[in-house]
Amino acid sequence: MMTDSAPSTVRTIGVVGGGQLARMMIPAAIELGLDIAVLAGSDTESAAQVAHRVEIGSHEDADAVAAFAASVDAVTFDHEHVPQDILRALEADGIAVRPGADALIHAQDKLVMRERLTELGHPCPQWWRITSRADLERALEEAGGRIVVKTARGGYDGHGVAVISSADEVADWLERGDDLLAEQLVPFTRELSAQVARRPGGQVAAYPVVESEQKDGVCFRVAAPAPGLSAERDAEIRGLAERIAEDLGVVGMLAVELFELADGTVLVNELAMRPHNTGHWSMDGCVTSQFEQHLRAVADLPLGSTEPLRPAAVMVNLLGGTREDLVEGGRIAVEQDPSATIHLYGKGVRPGRKVGHVNLTGEDMDEVTARGIRAAATIVDADD
Amino acid sequence: MMTDSAPSTVRTIGVVGGGQLARMMIPAAIELGLDIAVLAGSDTESAAQVAHRVEIGSHEDADAVAAFAASVDAVTFDHEHVPQDILRALEADGIAVRPGADALIHAQDKLVMRERLTELGHPCPQWWRITSRADLERALEEAGGRIVVKTARGGYDGHGVAVISSADEVADWLERGDDLLAEQLVPFTRELSAQVARRPGGQVAAYPVVESEQKDGVCFRVAAPAPGLSAERDAEIRGLAERIAEDLGVVGMLAVELFELADGTVLVNELAMRPHNTGHWSMDGCVTSQFEQHLRAVADLPLGSTEPLRPAAVMVNLLGGTREDLVEGGRIAVEQDPSATIHLYGKGVRPGRKVGHVNLTGEDMDEVTARGIRAAATIVDADD
Repeated sequence: MMTDSAPSTVRTIGVVGGGQLARMMIPAAIELGLDIAVLAGSDTESAAQVAHRVEIGSHEDADAVAAFAASVDAVTFDHEHVPQDILRALEADGIAVRPGADALIHAQDKLVMRERLTELGHPCPQWWRITSRADLERALEEAGGRIVVKTARGGYDGHGVAVISSADEVADWLERGDDLLAEQLVPFTRELSAQVARRPGGQVAAYPVVESEQKDGVCFRVAAPAPGLSAERDAEIRGLAERIAEDLGVVGMLAVELFELADGTVLVNELAMRPHNTGHWSMDGCVTSQFEQHLRAVADLPLGSTEPLRPAAVMVNLLGGTREDLVEGGRIAVEQDPSATIHLYGKGVRPGRKVGHVNLTGEDMDEVTARGIRAAATIVDADD
Repeated sequence: MMTDSAPSTVRTIGVVGGGQLARMMIPAAIELGLDIAVLAGSDTESAAQVAHRVEIGSHEDADAVAAFAASVDAVTFDHEHVPQDILRALEADGIAVRPGADALIHAQDKLVMRERLTELGHPCPQWWRITSRADLERALEEAGGRIVVKTARGGYDGHGVAVISSADEVADWLERGDDLLAEQLVPFTRELSAQVARRPGGQVAAYPVVESEQKDGVCFRVAAPAPGLSAERDAEIRGLAERIAEDLGVVGMLAVELFELADGTVLVNELAMRPHNTGHWSMDGCVTSQFEQHLRAVADLPLGSTEPLRPAAVMVNLLGGTREDLVEGGRIAVEQDPSATIHLYGKGVRPGRKVGHVNLTGEDMDEVTARGIRAAATIVDADD
């Protein structure tokens, strides 16, 4: 195991995937003096528009990924969709894959994640592995008539997730033959999220726990720190995220999405092993952004401070609305509120699509939240 | 004159010059969703290493600059060295040059700057235009035997500046035939710097006035806000910077370097019309960094808030020392102090060369200053 005092030999990081997360790693790499290369599906993808070095290729093409990986010192990811056999082939070739295949499987396969977290004793909703219609009917009965069903792989932002009260509602998923995950409908009071970075040698750094609000399965607003969360509970949840990172051998950022229950305890909802939407507030609200932190971990550099800069930070997603020209939307929003910090992803506008986010920091959470929501609405909708 | 409510049509900004200032504009452009192109002298220059779009060409080659300018919506600069005839040719072709030739001349020619500021009534040191040895001897006599002599053009970071007590000491400069600028040796208590951004339509936004410390003519440390500066004096100096920006028709960032006298009044030392070393603290210490602000002004977008995030911010330059590998230096520094935020420029290390800077923010200026100086020393020198 490497110690924190060993020099890092990673100077070029390769990011597989050309989405906005890869895009937002680029400014951090520039500041850190690290070279960064992006493997994108096309030259119009979010990160491909701005990276100095872009290779075009599919993350599902083993040869393309291997050639890309051979040209960098460490490989990391914009998303979780690189197949396990490709990851394992890279590792067999001695490539530094961060996070590695053994860790990443827990962000790729929700059944593997549930099994492992349960085995480790981390708090999960009641869940069932569904291999047949009979399993589904049993789960429905045990759960009281309604459950959440998720495809184990490939879901995101509400895709591959269904709340059902009859097995018929996911008959088509069952027919595909892959096992499904069923979970109780958790009576949560709100959703929380915990971000933690972990280096290869084991150093971890957790961010303050945040509150996230979803709309139609998509993250809409994040408040950092989570309003009303006691220092004890914050420390407890950070500790949980750190233990999960350690238990799963994560390298890079880990986001643990959580349900908060009425008694203040939490259950783990999902895991992501990369910078995560619920951590975007850190770009303007923290000493070290999650993007810099991810690259620090991947390059095996010491982790930066996760201290917030101000008492309240809010992030509001820009979800595609009626306005096509987001720079123009931002012009109007900043004219109204010069403290709104806008981050655009260079993506074409489609209804509900994540096309950017706006951050605001200040002294009072209610105030910055109201301002953040107003700024976001101004940017995405042209009818004001 | 454009009003603040007119849409901006600038979506691609061309930066002439490939140094670290152009480099640090790139992250800001990515976040703003603006495209940025760099005209660099070679592909190894600081910004050329990281920009998505780089053109190779000299800023003194009229055809290269014109071709570059024709491919973007507005042109701005990494430095002040583009010749006036090239700037004027661009403007004659209808290119948006920001700042324009009429403004930029005041950052290119110290004699023009002194004449204009004096004419406008802005506070300057006593100064003399030197066209002959006799002028120099008269200035020496009037100033009491010692003066500062500066070449009107081409000087930077202590180059082209000499403190003399005899005309013989700059005999070679005189022989070149260009007029020189002579100035009294100002008995300043410290150096201050005021940054202000100005849009084409006239909107201005000034940053808190900062204190800067020079070593051997090179900026070493900046404290923001300037310790002990009263709110009245800060407002007065911001106002001075705003008036100079307005009077000279600056578009983009203007840095006004100042001498503070024992009675608290100030004299203008030099002007720079671009993001400036004394404004680098804003990258981690302010709602809007000077790089984002510069691009906002150049793109004619509303200016962002210049509010500091914390009571104290310090920037310490990384000046080339005994360590070649600055990423390794940064590794050690952040292990010691995880709050030190490092910015590297991708430049080869030479003694005293500016190769990066480190920012720190906090509650107490003395504490963050001590930590910033220690972090910078750790990064550049290998003997610890």
